[in-house]
Amino acid sequence: MSEKVVAILGATGVVGTQMLQCLEERDFPVSRLVPLASARSAGKTLTFRGEEVAIQEARPEAFEGVDIVLGAAGDDIAKALLPEAAARGAVCVDNSHAFRLDPDVPLVVPEINAGDIANHPRNIIANPNCATIIGLVPTYPLHKAAGLRRMIVSTYQAASGAGMPGLRELQRETSVLANGGEMGDTSPFAYQLAANLIPQIGSFKDEGYTSEEWKMQNEGRKIMHLPEVRVNCTCVRVPVMRSHSESITCEFDRPLTPDQAREILAAAPGVKVVDDPATLSYPMPLDTSDQDLVYVGRIRRDLSAPEGVSSLTFWCCGDQIRKGAATNAVQIAEYLV
Amino acid sequence: MSEKVVAILGATGVVGTQMLQCLEERDFPVSRLVPLASARSAGKTLTFRGEEVAIQEARPEAFEGVDIVLGAAGDDIAKALLPEAAARGAVCVDNSHAFRLDPDVPLVVPEINAGDIANHPRNIIANPNCATIIGLVPTYPLHKAAGLRRMIVSTYQAASGAGMPGLRELQRETSVLANGGEMGDTSPFAYQLAANLIPQIGSFKDEGYTSEEWKMQNEGRKIMHLPEVRVNCTCVRVPVMRSHSESITCEFDRPLTPDQAREILAAAPGVKVVDDPATLSYPMPLDTSDQDLVYVGRIRRDLSAPEGVSSLTFWCCGDQIRKGAATNAVQIAEYLV
Repeated sequence: MSEKVVAILGATGVVGTQMLQCLEERDFPVSRLVPLASARSAGKTLTFRGEEVAIQEARPEAFEGVDIVLGAAGDDIAKALLPEAAARGAVCVDNSHAFRLDPDVPLVVPEINAGDIANHPRNIIANPNCATIIGLVPTYPLHKAAGLRRMIVSTYQAASGAGMPGLRELQRETSVLANGGEMGDTSPFAYQLAANLIPQIGSFKDEGYTSEEWKMQNEGRKIMHLPEVRVNCTCVRVPVMRSHSESITCEFDRPLTPDQAREILAAAPGVKVVDDPATLSYPMPLDTSDQDLVYVGRIRRDLSAPEGVSSLTFWCCGDQIRKGAATNAVQIAEYLV
Repeated sequence: MSEKVVAILGATGVVGTQMLQCLEERDFPVSRLVPLASARSAGKTLTFRGEEVAIQEARPEAFEGVDIVLGAAGDDIAKALLPEAAARGAVCVDNSHAFRLDPDVPLVVPEINAGDIANHPRNIIANPNCATIIGLVPTYPLHKAAGLRRMIVSTYQAASGAGMPGLRELQRETSVLANGGEMGDTSPFAYQLAANLIPQIGSFKDEGYTSEEWKMQNEGRKIMHLPEVRVNCTCVRVPVMRSHSESITCEFDRPLTPDQAREILAAAPGVKVVDDPATLSYPMPLDTSDQDLVYVGRIRRDLSAPEGVSSLTFWCCGDQIRKGAATNAVQIAEYLV
């Protein structure tokens, strides 16, 4: 396995910082790290494997000689810079939404469709939306067993989905709640998040669904190779730091019991079954933070299913910054080396 | 409208305290208030309409001469004392779970089945579960229009559902998060609630559903007079103080568009439609706290519905202590005078 020159685009953000840590933890073969950020951060340093590395300004020329780019920037920067990197021969694994639905860009959760990685004619591979990754990691093995037909998902999404500003804002609001003071401007959230719930993530699109809600269906169809699957998603921001949770009901073509589902999930990659009512064991966002598995539990028959419809309900949690973003991207990059 | 002697059983708890306030606000015709609590509180006073009233110990004799009892105690105390009150001629409106499924006890949300109040052979009328009330207030008018067949509900339930100890514990944990210190014992919650989610409310029962989750189906069937309706509920405790929120998908026998649903709900009792993506208007628990309406929004077509199945998705929030408990009980009592 030859060592690679790896650039991180957006190296100072919450996902970029986590990507750096994942490269270290997973002992990724990096010959040289190229951290890229805005001009404001250029010249500062960050530490990688115990050594100081200078941050460079993210410009097209910075990608000269780079083998792999991990993209942790927003849509506009990704659109402007990743084609420049790709033109210079780098393969880009991009966490933004910019290229996810491009038919020439694979959209990959390695536990599901690692086989799609090889064919990347634009030299760009997209990392899916965080809530989509966390919901699909346990759903896909059930699909393989019983044929997924329909998903109804309600999410409980962490502040980290809004990046470092989201994490800092929830901390600030928590302090105001505890100690008094003015709540004031709550950006990046439209409303106070602490002690509240905000049933909007992203912007409103067709049919009254938000951009985040559409992703679960649009990205899910592409990742699972299920162009007909129907997904109803309600995305809600909750006052939790960095793990997303989801309440999911799945209808299948074929019968599937809760016991069969538990057995399938116990053997599935990237999943940990935590499902024992007797010991009050179930996934919780505090327990799933800062690790890479999606925990799944509360697996049970859907009491509302009409006669003859195979349907299960479950609850899952996963770290939004890791498996929802950075770890998934580094896993994809591992297939490239 | 003659004035009544009104007792509150459990007058010092969070629901009992709110009942007292609701009686004042709604100008309920009280000739004499009889606050009842444990022996520990007996002799202390509370203020009602500007006057000090002594708290009495909750014993059978305390119900002599009482016309109406508002029950805000737990199941065991309700079971022991309310039949004593009823035997002495009082009519009891009970917030506990003890009598809810008794066929001789009406279970009432006044906006839905006020007609059931009149027939109360045991002199007990039951107040439903809080999440059930808040979910059904907007669901029932849609049922009347289109015929409810199936509900899939994911809840986001506030700390107040665990009473005053729940409210105090979330405040304490918030302070520990903000200022440091030991998280320590988190009771009444099984796990830390601040910055976390607990996907268990009540105890585990049949098929891996919790007692709280079964209530939505069992109580919903009785309240709506729909013995066949099927309900799949996932109940989750969230770090919010006093408003429950719910993500609900309903399947109907007949077609119902989102616009029709908005029109029906705008005219429905107890409901406020807050549903305008253009102004980022949707129900949020902070906005619905300390008032009596259930707010409903995010009303949209269920993208996952199979061909030919009429299905809508929406989001609602309501104050758990008020409409979820105290206000609903006082509304029932108003039908008795």
